[in-house]
Amino acid sequence: EILEKIYGKGARRCPYSDDQISLVFSQSRSFDLVELEQLLESVGWSRRPMRRVRRALENSLIRVGLWLHDARFPRLIGFARCTGDGVLEATVWDVAIHPLYQGVGLGKLLMEYILESLAEMGVERVTLFADPGVVDFYESQGWVLEPEGHRCSFWYAN
Amino acid sequence: EILEKIYGKGARRCPYSDDQISLVFSQSRSFDLVELEQLLESVGWSRRPMRRVRRALENSLIRVGLWLHDARFPRLIGFARCTGDGVLEATVWDVAIHPLYQGVGLGKLLMEYILESLAEMGVERVTLFADPGVVDFYESQGWVLEPEGHRCSFWYAN
Repeated sequence: EILEKIYGKGARRCPYSDDQISLVFSQSRSFDLVELEQLLESVGWSRRPMRRVRRALENSLIRVGLWLHDARFPRLIGFARCTGDGVLEATVWDVAIHPLYQGVGLGKLLMEYILESLAEMGVERVTLFADPGVVDFYESQGWVLEPEGHRCSFWYAN
Repeated sequence: EILEKIYGKGARRCPYSDDQISLVFSQSRSFDLVELEQLLESVGWSRRPMRRVRRALENSLIRVGLWLHDARFPRLIGFARCTGDGVLEATVWDVAIHPLYQGVGLGKLLMEYILESLAEMGVERVTLFADPGVVDFYESQGWVLEPEGHRCSFWYAN
């Protein structure tokens, strides 16, 4: 139908209750990397070389865009991606909702959409690294922090 | 040369100082899934359906075997794998050294080999989830625990 024509296979309306606007989740509409970078910068992510971002997206398990629907000019207002093996493990990265659209539950809907997509795939365990400011957000949605004493560790390439 | 013939492209001797035995790192020699499962069980990992393990391995960024060298019957004594996009992020899973070979620094050599391989690939950040018993191990090798207040979260299917 019309949504799939614009947003690609599997596109789905985001169940956000506002008659004024229509929002769509898509895993297959391709991103304008400048628009994606602007979104990520608007939530405080640091800028990364576009060529590397493109490859990272290509190599991700899923890439989810949340689009402000417009038949001709959809605008990207949310994003997240997952890496992983698609079977035993998946890890969520780069979750972003544009500041203008924060505070109305879209982050929660985006995460629910992602967990549903991963569950359909049959993924057993989903992990993420949360910034201090959003730990409560994830806990309130049933995420378990450091279960069984697991700790997360980071190693940075120079 | 002979190592690549047995262990595949890029195989490399593990710099372990013991004249009696010879150890080899490989990213391309395929695994006997029964042998791999025995190794993972020997370090306390829970059993997982073999079909799913096979797919998870196929979908991993790298799969590293540490082999006790034998021209005819190499034995798997160490293992680890990474998921990720191979550019911005990689995550290490299922690190195991067979109990008979623990305590002589092989875990450290395995992790060094993995970090080198990921650095060659150009990966910016490597992450892992550590069990409580091995947090000191990773910290002593320069891993940063929950830097900048990041917390790790888990979500389990069903």
